[in-house]
Amino acid sequence: MKIDLTKEVIRAENKSVIIIDQTKLPHKLEFLTLKNYKETAQAIKNMNLRGAGTVGVAAGYAMAQAFSELKSKEKILQAKKLIENTRPTAQNLFYATNLVFKTALNKKNSESAAWDTADSILASDIEATSRMGKLGAELIGENYNILTHCNAGKLAIQGYGSALAPIYYAHEQKKICFVYVDETRPRLQGARLTAWELAQENIYHAIIADNAAGYYLQKGEIDIVFVGADRIAKNGDVDNKIGTYEKAVLAKENDVPFYVVAPQSTIDAETKSGSGIIIEQRSSDEVKQINNNLIANKQSKALNPAFDITPAEYITDIITEKGIYEPKKLYKL
Amino acid sequence: MKIDLTKEVIRAENKSVIIIDQTKLPHKLEFLTLKNYKETAQAIKNMNLRGAGTVGVAAGYAMAQAFSELKSKEKILQAKKLIENTRPTAQNLFYATNLVFKTALNKKNSESAAWDTADSILASDIEATSRMGKLGAELIGENYNILTHCNAGKLAIQGYGSALAPIYYAHEQKKICFVYVDETRPRLQGARLTAWELAQENIYHAIIADNAAGYYLQKGEIDIVFVGADRIAKNGDVDNKIGTYEKAVLAKENDVPFYVVAPQSTIDAETKSGSGIIIEQRSSDEVKQINNNLIANKQSKALNPAFDITPAEYITDIITEKGIYEPKKLYKL
Repeated sequence: MKIDLTKEVIRAENKSVIIIDQTKLPHKLEFLTLKNYKETAQAIKNMNLRGAGTVGVAAGYAMAQAFSELKSKEKILQAKKLIENTRPTAQNLFYATNLVFKTALNKKNSESAAWDTADSILASDIEATSRMGKLGAELIGENYNILTHCNAGKLAIQGYGSALAPIYYAHEQKKICFVYVDETRPRLQGARLTAWELAQENIYHAIIADNAAGYYLQKGEIDIVFVGADRIAKNGDVDNKIGTYEKAVLAKENDVPFYVVAPQSTIDAETKSGSGIIIEQRSSDEVKQINNNLIANKQSKALNPAFDITPAEYITDIITEKGIYEPKKLYKL
Repeated sequence: MKIDLTKEVIRAENKSVIIIDQTKLPHKLEFLTLKNYKETAQAIKNMNLRGAGTVGVAAGYAMAQAFSELKSKEKILQAKKLIENTRPTAQNLFYATNLVFKTALNKKNSESAAWDTADSILASDIEATSRMGKLGAELIGENYNILTHCNAGKLAIQGYGSALAPIYYAHEQKKICFVYVDETRPRLQGARLTAWELAQENIYHAIIADNAAGYYLQKGEIDIVFVGADRIAKNGDVDNKIGTYEKAVLAKENDVPFYVVAPQSTIDAETKSGSGIIIEQRSSDEVKQINNNLIANKQSKALNPAFDITPAEYITDIITEKGIYEPKKLYKL
């Protein structure tokens, strides 16, 4: 089944949220219908949907569902807390719940205001990815080899994605490029999701073990790196998928430009620097098992930090829908 | 079953080679009996045994088997070529085949000379790992956190291993330490083999995704890094498991000492620098599948370089059985 990924990763219909179940990809393309705010929150928590933008949109719709289902401010605030407790790292999640809550609360028809606001988050993501894609595509030369980490594509933020948006635009402009896709352990979002997305558009690519990114950077075979962000601190430090920091250090060491692509909603002006960001520690099973099969020594423990902080000094520039900024100058936005 | 790993990873008995089948670890401890040089060569190729030292010992015994089975110099030379074609990167393999061949060739009883020489390679590995362990253990302080990559333990070189030898000695000296074990994609030698080895000795450890090593180095939670080597060039550049280069760059960036532990037989004086070393490219199935289960997008390609080169400038020192050397001063050996 061929679908339009720029539109069908997440959408609302009759007060339900319809999503692609990303845990089933790449083997099966299945949709889930989330009928109330608790189901939507659970889907965020279970990572049936993931990616900073998609999580934000889902959180916005979950808040709208709460406004439809609940009457008192107290209960809606409890629902907000439940939604916010699903994933501690994603800035877009808090941005969305706060925006919907504040906008809808004192309106005459708060329910419809909540849904309109949630819709606007989705619409502004689509618009933002389109602008980021156009800006980023200008940095891609003919026959460029590109490295990306995790999945910051259409599955992660509706429209053209963030890190992958410049690649999709360059491809539409008929530039030929090749993408090295970090498999992105432990959850393999690169091998499963980014590779699947790129294959849908027939963009040349190859999956590599995360360990091999340094090898290709050292050999001079990578021209540019694009990654997304889950949260950006005021000083330009970037919180993103575990391993992003490693690739940023290796890119700098080998003089390869390293770009973070993320919409403005990812910037957390309340957080001065990366050291103020709490890193989500996830289950050791994600490291020790794949598809419920044990792949490691059974008696051994595993540690599983899900994100890391890339200090601003390793980032060439940050591409937002408003323009391309040096990380240290982001605070001007 | 509790076995003495310092002695039972590889040994010869009645002209057969008896090995632990490392492809079955950590779930099952099984032994294989390799009855002739072709079976031994096949086991090297299939990676039923792996690790620079163990491969070298197996190659030496395979040559001895060839001397037992074949009469003419020509046929023995053909066997030598077959053995050498199993794994192109391992320096110890060529060291062993050449040593057995040259020593045995013109002896009156070349068969027994071949077996004696092969036995001596094993004995000298055991002796070397013991010395490297003692030297390296002096670098480990009380309550140290240690990072290691891949498996450079008893399974990789008989006796105490190479990178793990200092840890085993420190543990015997009752120093308490904790080992962060890189899982080491794509073949997961860390998660499967190093974790299993350390668990046998009740050494505290945790498996981490390769992506998380940078996170712990950045946080200052790692005091020292030990890795092994498959080949060391004359200028001190080190060829080792893919990902070693990444960890070395990250260690240097965070001022964490990075040690390579390897016996002298790993040094290839014929190769001036790392750029002269051919990197083995292995099957894409190793990246896309685990235990024959597809874990990546089916239609996507994967690239799988098995080793990388860590330039001498990233290495604090190289620990050999002869002493601890700055990489640039190795040529004096």
